[in-house]
Amino acid sequence: MSARRVGVWIVGAFGGVATTVALGLSAMKRGLAPSTGLVSALPLFDGLDLVDPGELVLGGHELRLTSLEESAEEFRQGSGVFDRSWLDVCRDDLAQATARVRPAPHLGIGATIAKLATWEPAHQPKTPRAAIDLIAADLREFVARESIDHLIVLNLASTEPPFAVEAAHQTWDRLKRELGKPDETLLPSSSLYAIAALEGGHTHINFTPSLGSSFPAAYELAESTKAIHAGKDGKTGETLLKTVLAPMFAHRNLDVMSWVGHNIFGNRDGVVLDDPANKASKVGSKDKVVTSILGYKPSTLVSIEYIPDMGDWKTAWDHIHFRGFLGAKMKMQFIWEGCDSLLAAPLAIDLVRLADWEKRRGTIGPLKHLASFFKSPEGVEEHDFFEQFRLLVDHVDQAKKTNVR
Amino acid sequence: MSARRVGVWIVGAFGGVATTVALGLSAMKRGLAPSTGLVSALPLFDGLDLVDPGELVLGGHELRLTSLEESAEEFRQGSGVFDRSWLDVCRDDLAQATARVRPAPHLGIGATIAKLATWEPAHQPKTPRAAIDLIAADLREFVARESIDHLIVLNLASTEPPFAVEAAHQTWDRLKRELGKPDETLLPSSSLYAIAALEGGHTHINFTPSLGSSFPAAYELAESTKAIHAGKDGKTGETLLKTVLAPMFAHRNLDVMSWVGHNIFGNRDGVVLDDPANKASKVGSKDKVVTSILGYKPSTLVSIEYIPDMGDWKTAWDHIHFRGFLGAKMKMQFIWEGCDSLLAAPLAIDLVRLADWEKRRGTIGPLKHLASFFKSPEGVEEHDFFEQFRLLVDHVDQAKKTNVR
Amino acid sequence: MSARRVGVWIVGAFGGVATTVALGLSAMKRGLAPSTGLVSALPLFDGLDLVDPGELVLGGHELRLTSLEESAEEFRQGSGVFDRSWLDVCRDDLAQATARVRPAPHLGIGATIAKLATWEPAHQPKTPRAAIDLIAADLREFVARESIDHLIVLNLASTEPPFAVEAAHQTWDRLKRELGKPDETLLPSSSLYAIAALEGGHTHINFTPSLGSSFPAAYELAESTKAIHAGKDGKTGETLLKTVLAPMFAHRNLDVMSWVGHNIFGNRDGVVLDDPANKASKVGSKDKVVTSILGYKPSTLVSIEYIPDMGDWKTAWDHIHFRGFLGAKMKMQFIWEGCDSLLAAPLAIDLVRLADWEKRRGTIGPLKHLASFFKSPEGVEEHDFFEQFRLLVDHVDQAKKTNVR
Amino acid sequence: MSARRVGVWIVGAFGGVATTVALGLSAMKRGLAPSTGLVSALPLFDGLDLVDPGELVLGGHELRLTSLEESAEEFRQGSGVFDRSWLDVCRDDLAQATARVRPAPHLGIGATIAKLATWEPAHQPKTPRAAIDLIAADLREFVARESIDHLIVLNLASTEPPFAVEAAHQTWDRLKRELGKPDETLLPSSSLYAIAALEGGHTHINFTPSLGSSFPAAYELAESTKAIHAGKDGKTGETLLKTVLAPMFAHRNLDVMSWVGHNIFGNRDGVVLDDPANKASKVGSKDKVVTSILGYKPSTLVSIEYIPDMGDWKTAWDHIHFRGFLGAKMKMQFIWEGCDSLLAAPLAIDLVRLADWEKRRGTIGPLKHLASFFKSPEGVEEHDFFEQFRLLVDHVDQAKKTNVR
Repeated sequence: MSARRVGVWIVGAFGGVATTVALGLSAMKRGLAPSTGLVSALPLFDGLDLVDPGELVLGGHELRLTSLEESAEEFRQGSGVFDRSWLDVCRDDLAQATARVRPAPHLGIGATIAKLATWEPAHQPKTPRAAIDLIAADLREFVARESIDHLIVLNLASTEPPFAVEAAHQTWDRLKRELGKPDETLLPSSSLYAIAALEGGHTHINFTPSLGSSFPAAYELAESTKAIHAGKDGKTGETLLKTVLAPMFAHRNLDVMSWVGHNIFGNRDGVVLDDPANKASKVGSKDKVVTSILGYKPSTLVSIEYIPDMGDWKTAWDHIHFRGFLGAKMKMQFIWEGCDSLLAAPLAIDLVRLADWEKRRGTIGPLKHLASFFKSPEGVEEHDFFEQFRLLVDHVDQAKKTNVR
Repeated sequence: MSARRVGVWIVGAFGGVATTVALGLSAMKRGLAPSTGLVSALPLFDGLDLVDPGELVLGGHELRLTSLEESAEEFRQGSGVFDRSWLDVCRDDLAQATARVRPAPHLGIGATIAKLATWEPAHQPKTPRAAIDLIAADLREFVARESIDHLIVLNLASTEPPFAVEAAHQTWDRLKRELGKPDETLLPSSSLYAIAALEGGHTHINFTPSLGSSFPAAYELAESTKAIHAGKDGKTGETLLKTVLAPMFAHRNLDVMSWVGHNIFGNRDGVVLDDPANKASKVGSKDKVVTSILGYKPSTLVSIEYIPDMGDWKTAWDHIHFRGFLGAKMKMQFIWEGCDSLLAAPLAIDLVRLADWEKRRGTIGPLKHLASFFKSPEGVEEHDFFEQFRLLVDHVDQAKKTNVR
Repeated sequence: MSARRVGVWIVGAFGGVATTVALGLSAMKRGLAPSTGLVSALPLFDGLDLVDPGELVLGGHELRLTSLEESAEEFRQGSGVFDRSWLDVCRDDLAQATARVRPAPHLGIGATIAKLATWEPAHQPKTPRAAIDLIAADLREFVARESIDHLIVLNLASTEPPFAVEAAHQTWDRLKRELGKPDETLLPSSSLYAIAALEGGHTHINFTPSLGSSFPAAYELAESTKAIHAGKDGKTGETLLKTVLAPMFAHRNLDVMSWVGHNIFGNRDGVVLDDPANKASKVGSKDKVVTSILGYKPSTLVSIEYIPDMGDWKTAWDHIHFRGFLGAKMKMQFIWEGCDSLLAAPLAIDLVRLADWEKRRGTIGPLKHLASFFKSPEGVEEHDFFEQFRLLVDHVDQAKKTNVR
Repeated sequence: MSARRVGVWIVGAFGGVATTVALGLSAMKRGLAPSTGLVSALPLFDGLDLVDPGELVLGGHELRLTSLEESAEEFRQGSGVFDRSWLDVCRDDLAQATARVRPAPHLGIGATIAKLATWEPAHQPKTPRAAIDLIAADLREFVARESIDHLIVLNLASTEPPFAVEAAHQTWDRLKRELGKPDETLLPSSSLYAIAALEGGHTHINFTPSLGSSFPAAYELAESTKAIHAGKDGKTGETLLKTVLAPMFAHRNLDVMSWVGHNIFGNRDGVVLDDPANKASKVGSKDKVVTSILGYKPSTLVSIEYIPDMGDWKTAWDHIHFRGFLGAKMKMQFIWEGCDSLLAAPLAIDLVRLADWEKRRGTIGPLKHLASFFKSPEGVEEHDFFEQFRLLVDHVDQAKKTNVR
């Protein structure tokens, strides 16, 4: 494996999750942290020769002019989760990754995210095509300079507003023609990155609720370039629990009357989600899973509120009101207190490792067996976490049997 | 089906769960309540021609001289769960079942349970064999009088203290010889009922944490008489949640440091569990599942406390402290507020229906595919609720394929 | 006392709280319920000869054509809080009160509340003055027919949108001139009732967050007619707890960084509060108390959401994030599960009894010593519950000393 | 003030609370931390010229051979509450205090606490009198060497088992005679420290549930030497909340049926409290306050369990089941997550400052106005937190009026 180089190009490269990915990779390499939280470190994957996390080469695009070192320090102070001494040990690794980050083009990012931008790129694209080409040029340079064998574009950027897929997004031929027109609303930024990745035959992983490659033309493009893609919206906390608990209510034939979930948190993502348009994407992705699993629609309510002093700690209170035998009303409540970036980062690393393994196996298109990682899995309608995990186990078992590693 | 008669002989026939079973069967038959809470009413079982709940014939043994009508009224007042008008509609059904209940022999019931006894049986057995024979005589009379085709002995009695299985319980031959000796400590009451059932070729279902048929000699006996048995300790609330949530932590490679569970409730079961000896059985059954699923032993603590004003409402607070990526400590807490008897009763009815179906299919021995119903499933070490449920689904699917109904 | 007749004219006479008041008065009179929940039954008030709850004469205005009997049955079924047999015992009392309820004029009620209206009054007023006169006529008739010595108008109606007090509401002279103009926006409905009450020298109690008598011209009017008034917004659950807990944080010099409160409930009030305009009144009243008590402004968030299956049960989750010694971040969370109408009704009865006592003592104007009953107490800025309660205790002690009963 | 020297002699000088006191005093002096959490920093005390926290001189006794520096590092790692850099800044201050700590005599400490002892004193006393003299000698040396004007002995040691006060403890004359006999059970260690302090005319503050000076002979001794004493059992978390919330239920005439409290935590105190004998003191002190405030006895349950991974974080879940109007059962639950030492340390500093102020004012005997700091306040039966706080406010106001500072 050592000769092969896997590059991870992160969209939102100085954000909380990206910073945690970078710090985590370095901390594991330096022996500071074990692999706790990495699904890909489970015994299930023993013998598969997944890429060593320490060998991943990081780069990326970012709108804010800062650095992984600063971002890591800010994260540590705001959320108090790892020791300051780690920053000393990992500083060089972070600085090297920081040096490989480029300013992001500003097309299609929306007004709320635009407010955060503090890093002006040299060129301001006028058309989606021009933006894609600027992105692609940065990818090419990264691949060349770092001798990357497999490039994975990983979207960890802020949540965009919901985007309605229309006729123009149905086929690649049609969409390709539209890309050259000066229409900033044709596609959101996340999809421009997806197209840049897939056109180049690179892998695309969308960890956000934004559109990314979730439309027919992108699927078609991926097939044509033999590219892999996976997404969307990493399932880290409250929604994970919904997809764990809802099957229990279903299997016990208990009648869920209402499922209310309130989330509070205080990281930068919160600033973006304070815009109702951006929040709608997140809430939509969080809300549908319960109905999908139960097979009927209880009263549901999901809120996500930005409370600055919470830092990266996301606390969810869920109240589940259900009817049991003889019509008796009962209830379950849970409170989840998780550090958001620390829940998301290991899953992002898992997705990189598992996608890389698929690349070596020659897989093309959406990675349906990774459904358990996502709130809105690409290419499969299954939301029950345990059915999703079974897809993964069955997939790995099948691969082991066919002796392809 | 209408010609076939299925009898359910309940040990603890006037207890909270038994009362809810009786009332529930009547309420469903009278159209007052839907099948919410019945697993056996899930679409999974469509086309299997399970016995109609309304056709089950109830009888049983009891230590307390009361009636299902009184017990139902007491339950309603203490827990406020169904309308008083139901009692009017169901009174005749309850009275008929009450008339089929017999005083239980007092051998092997332990000091704490003995304190509750207010109904003196005509004969006081001196040996386990004598007690078994008294039980068997009552079973025979019930079968004869009610023209029962399939008799199911269902243990819903109070929890006994833990019982150490020893050499005497290893083979039926050996145990049979000991039964005739005047040794009250040879077997707990629950096992005398199990032996009476299995010797008669009847089905035995142990919904309690007591020993019942959970020892080699009883397994051997069941094989020899072609009897079915299932158990033990119905999984209704907090433990159900443990077996739902622990797999999530395992699949996400999160390191559970401690899992603390405090339960408070106020029904008669609580009076018995206030005796530390009896409580030990319950706590043991509740405590082991987390360790079994995770594959390592976190700090665990389970308490069950009797708070009279809670009535039949059991409230559990669980605090799960876990370590995630980069060693960060996070936590989940849940609060479960369920009406205990209303969670247990439908599962007891499910077990009766599914055991009856197995009887017609010619099954013998422990029903391993019913593991999802129990805290300590007989014959299988699986505690992950979703793996257990998969056993049930696979079993039913297999049966449907082989076209045996 | 028996010769003296106290009348209670309820605005919103068939609503949840009004129904509970009517049922509660009857149930206490009939010996079904003790005085639990009545502040005025505390030993503090021993010897004050407060009016006997059973002697209060109920009447009122209502927009919906129903009855106390129907409303009580609906409440019982939706929230399962008292036994059906009570309705039989109390039916006559409820029917008598129902017969004294009149259709409410529709002026100034706002669009959302108007949608609930199903009872058309004979006359539709065109001006505020006309509406006030219609109300006053009904009050006069009630007083005459029932030989009422002291009439208390008690507002238990749905929450109106916030109302900006302006120049026109500063003096009674000025306002009086405006009342005759056909301007539906001059005053909300709650204030028309307040004026009708105060002009007649009757007592006015505003249990809602609506404007009522909370403006200078109404204060002036009350002084001129020697009338009593009290309000506003009964403090029953989450806000009560805020005013109990915030002083603790203040006295311990703990720095509250954020206080988030989410409320869910399912009664008719919820339908009205689903309109953001109406909700704003409620949230405003709930939100300000923490800042007022702490003396600085933490991040605060209050939501109230309508979840139909909750019935009258209001569940609040509050998350309080605070900083302690050496800057350590700590937290407290609470979950309050209360039946809203059953928390509100006894306080409404208390207010009637205590206002009547003041009337006999010759008090005029706002009853500041009743601050502990309200989220936005009239005439006093104190929100600390224990300081408010001390106002009450001191007031009663002072009255006892001066030997006026 | 600067010429006056106040010494604080801490029993349990390397424990969690003592370490936090030492670190906190240094951190405040060095400008690292504000006075958040210090009651004595409230505006109420403005103008009273309390001793500056930074001027307190620390010393003490300890059973374990370690240091404040080590203990602070251990605390930081286990509970993650302040930045490592603080230890660098405060190291010299901690080292100086460490140098003033002496090995504690081992008489009367009980078996469980004795197990923790790793520091052997030079002399092993055979009688209580001998132990007291050894303690007194260390106090004298401290006073002389550090030129202490006012010495305060502050007990922050582990909780001892409950101790029955008997005839021998009623008068100082009688007790004095018994002290010379070789009877290790005559008095617990906490009381030997109290006697040593009070005999020397020093101030004694008991922050623990142990006996300390809570018996008539000690009261008499204090009077005779004109000494001050205060205690006992600092009220930091769950019990504080009980004394805040119970008055609310009382003032609203709500009927508390049960109050269940479960506490989990993982600091060294937990090791000691795992001994049921030691735990009994703590639980007793925590349990009685609710009954005292309500005036009747609901079902109560208090548990404290040692869960090592919790570190110094104490989490309490309280479940309060109450009956409201018309008999409806409702409930409140709270979850308190506090860092125990960080809640206790500022209160200990407050007590030192306020006791020193009393000393300058010439006060003698128990400080009843400090009741709000304690679970079992000396000399006063008031448990309502707000009544207790009012005692403090009234005391300070009175002192300000009499112009004695």
